[in-house]
Amino acid sequence: MGHPAVAPRRLPTVLLGGLLPVAGWFILRPFLDPVPPLPGLYTSFGFSILAFLAVLYLVPAVKSNFVKANLYGKDLLKIYDDLIPESQGVVCAAVYILTLVCFIPFAFSDAFVSTKTKPEGISINEFPLYRLSVYLSSILSILIAAILGFLDDVFDIRWRHKLPIPIIASIPLLMVYFAERGNTNVVVPLPLRFMLGSLVNLGPLYYVYISLLSTFSTNGINILAGINASEVGQALIIALSVIVNDLLYLPFPIDFRIPVHLLGSQMEVEVGGVWSAGMSYGSRELVERHLFSLYFMMPLVAVCLGFIYHNWYPARAFPGDTLCYFTGMTFAVVGIQAHYSKTLLLFFLPQVFNFLLSCPQLFGLVPCPRHRIPRFDRDTNLLHPSKAKFITPPSGLTTFVIRVFSALGLVKMTTDPKTGSILEVTNLTILNFFLVRLGPMTEKRLVQVLMCSQFAGSILAFVVRYGLASIVYDGDRR
Amino acid sequence: MGHPAVAPRRLPTVLLGGLLPVAGWFILRPFLDPVPPLPGLYTSFGFSILAFLAVLYLVPAVKSNFVKANLYGKDLLKIYDDLIPESQGVVCAAVYILTLVCFIPFAFSDAFVSTKTKPEGISINEFPLYRLSVYLSSILSILIAAILGFLDDVFDIRWRHKLPIPIIASIPLLMVYFAERGNTNVVVPLPLRFMLGSLVNLGPLYYVYISLLSTFSTNGINILAGINASEVGQALIIALSVIVNDLLYLPFPIDFRIPVHLLGSQMEVEVGGVWSAGMSYGSRELVERHLFSLYFMMPLVAVCLGFIYHNWYPARAFPGDTLCYFTGMTFAVVGIQAHYSKTLLLFFLPQVFNFLLSCPQLFGLVPCPRHRIPRFDRDTNLLHPSKAKFITPPSGLTTFVIRVFSALGLVKMTTDPKTGSILEVTNLTILNFFLVRLGPMTEKRLVQVLMCSQFAGSILAFVVRYGLASIVYDGDRR
Repeated sequence: MGHPAVAPRRLPTVLLGGLLPVAGWFILRPFLDPVPPLPGLYTSFGFSILAFLAVLYLVPAVKSNFVKANLYGKDLLKIYDDLIPESQGVVCAAVYILTLVCFIPFAFSDAFVSTKTKPEGISINEFPLYRLSVYLSSILSILIAAILGFLDDVFDIRWRHKLPIPIIASIPLLMVYFAERGNTNVVVPLPLRFMLGSLVNLGPLYYVYISLLSTFSTNGINILAGINASEVGQALIIALSVIVNDLLYLPFPIDFRIPVHLLGSQMEVEVGGVWSAGMSYGSRELVERHLFSLYFMMPLVAVCLGFIYHNWYPARAFPGDTLCYFTGMTFAVVGIQAHYSKTLLLFFLPQVFNFLLSCPQLFGLVPCPRHRIPRFDRDTNLLHPSKAKFITPPSGLTTFVIRVFSALGLVKMTTDPKTGSILEVTNLTILNFFLVRLGPMTEKRLVQVLMCSQFAGSILAFVVRYGLASIVYDGDRR
Repeated sequence: MGHPAVAPRRLPTVLLGGLLPVAGWFILRPFLDPVPPLPGLYTSFGFSILAFLAVLYLVPAVKSNFVKANLYGKDLLKIYDDLIPESQGVVCAAVYILTLVCFIPFAFSDAFVSTKTKPEGISINEFPLYRLSVYLSSILSILIAAILGFLDDVFDIRWRHKLPIPIIASIPLLMVYFAERGNTNVVVPLPLRFMLGSLVNLGPLYYVYISLLSTFSTNGINILAGINASEVGQALIIALSVIVNDLLYLPFPIDFRIPVHLLGSQMEVEVGGVWSAGMSYGSRELVERHLFSLYFMMPLVAVCLGFIYHNWYPARAFPGDTLCYFTGMTFAVVGIQAHYSKTLLLFFLPQVFNFLLSCPQLFGLVPCPRHRIPRFDRDTNLLHPSKAKFITPPSGLTTFVIRVFSALGLVKMTTDPKTGSILEVTNLTILNFFLVRLGPMTEKRLVQVLMCSQFAGSILAFVVRYGLASIVYDGDRR
């Protein structure tokens, strides 16, 4: 093997020494007087720090175990041939799930406290069984997705065999949603109300929608992959966006206003005051839903941060399908359980774009090679768009689709100068699209462009959600 | 590799053709009038048939994937060197979990029906959230155990790293137990009542007991391993024993008496009549607990039956740690959730015996080689007890323990004729104990002896539970 071209990234021991007591303080803070208004949030933050440290230190520590277990690969877009441990997303998934499981007692600490301090009175203080079911079913769904991903990494399951699994993984979610006598009504946008009325009961279709959402979010990140840190980078920015959205609904001790009227909205968003956060308008239920979402998102950001340290260009570790599946399922779970699935979809704009762009290849109109990652030029160290070749002249429909895409500037095609028939076309992914529009660039630059587009998508999502939503919907959108 | 010595066992296609419609009938039966009294039981049985067929056909079908993924081994107790796929227990675990998840809606079908047919009245028909939490937490715990097993198979985790995992896996169980304001009282046996009173509140110690039970049952099967079909054989007989015990509490359309007075009990056990089964004495809660247990045990028997077909001597597939961990955790889960953990422990008599016998090796008194499986004699095809050698003369405590064990006939030792110091001793496992007592035998014979001892243990368990319990406990033991 010779000398490795990429040695493991060094880990600052001072980080471990410095962050451990910080984590300890956050975990213990709820037990100190005066008890903070949202004690679970402190513990969750403390656990997240521990999860971050665990991933940061475990990923390089278990490298040799992964290589020994045949879980390694070579980086296709590099000049060196080092063995890089593959599917280390399973480390993230394991740490993440263990964090969530250990956090269960703290998520229900208010139930423990209230049963202790209020023994008198006729109404028995009921344990929040519904919240517990939601919590358990969420972990269960995420765990099934993580296993699917890992089995896929180990056994290379065919895609049509694994397609139904996200649907099965979402059965626990559906059951809990039903148990709440799930509200399957959907508010109709103003322009359509003359036809449908103001509420439409989707009924069983709502459950189909939930299943499709899980399928999309688990696969959406997975098909936007192939360059260092692309998968974990997307997950990180989506999770941060969700956290920002959640924080809008939390009771803050400080009081501030967000000038959403600048975005064209009629309302003022005022954030502040315990249990009367701006967007929650004093609804305890809304606060609890977004707390639930934060309990799942903060550890996710933590494991993603720990992993991106090793996965960043040039990568020392690969995530495998495990990371894509479990992060995707986590987003679907919180979107469904905390009832903001439409807002969530807005954070997936680059993934939606990538999926729509990919459709002609996914559905067989355009030939789909095994890898659609950009082509690496070993001399310049730059990435170029990779291409799909037509062995036989394409059908009329395919030609039409590619010519439309080409006119929109989404792809570059090469045509036969004599017959005008299409010979090849750049692969239909967002990564190749960036390379077509912005020209060849390094892998590091490309992942930065991808993350910037994800970030820009989130900004747009907030504008649409809090600015434009009041145009198509009236009143408070909860 | 040459010609394989063990070709895959043939699968009768007539079985698939014949059992599929049977499974279909059982799954659909609850939807046909007249609805049977326990509709979920029919569906569960139908799903179990499907699970049996799935394991039966999947295990040989995915063999090449396992070998490709580096998951294979050689059978240490055979004369041939064929590659046998290892850790195929993951197929059982996957089929089992998917069966349980798909069954969730049917387990709560009565809740669906009752919300439909009783719209009037002031009391809202509540969804059985508590039962749902129990169900979800159980699947979650089993799933965590299954993953631990599979990660152990892939990465060979050190045992002190994996010891805390069953405890973490049981956190969901503990939470749900607490949520029910878990009864942590324990009925004190009659002979001890003069000291402790009739009830003792174990409080937090009860949760410690539950954690230890999960740890014991996950590891109990795992350390009684090493010969073909030993792991799945134990699991199968324990599961069948649990099912027999559950059936005693179910409302049968027929009415019969079990002559327990012959076993020294004062009471008569009468089994029969809808919702008034013999041991349930009309308690709907008891019936529901044992139904819950059956919902978990029937698919378990199914996947074990499907797997033992391929794992039986000479084995075409190995279970790996995955099977031991997930079956063990399943027993712990039903024992805790359906509140018969003490009865369950009685079904683990051979495992308890094996654990106690192993203690001197587990805790370092006696040297513990990597494998403690019996020694294979290639010429006679017989198994002999394997031995642990003392390189240095054993300490006084070790000598004492071995001499006691030897006097009890549990081990055979060799002593130095001059000094009297112990030179070697047969390894401290139940398998070596059988070989010491019954003489050398074939592997097939040994696994039959093991399964017979498990069966005899269950018979003894029933005698103790329903015969002798009335001596140490008064009244109805529920």
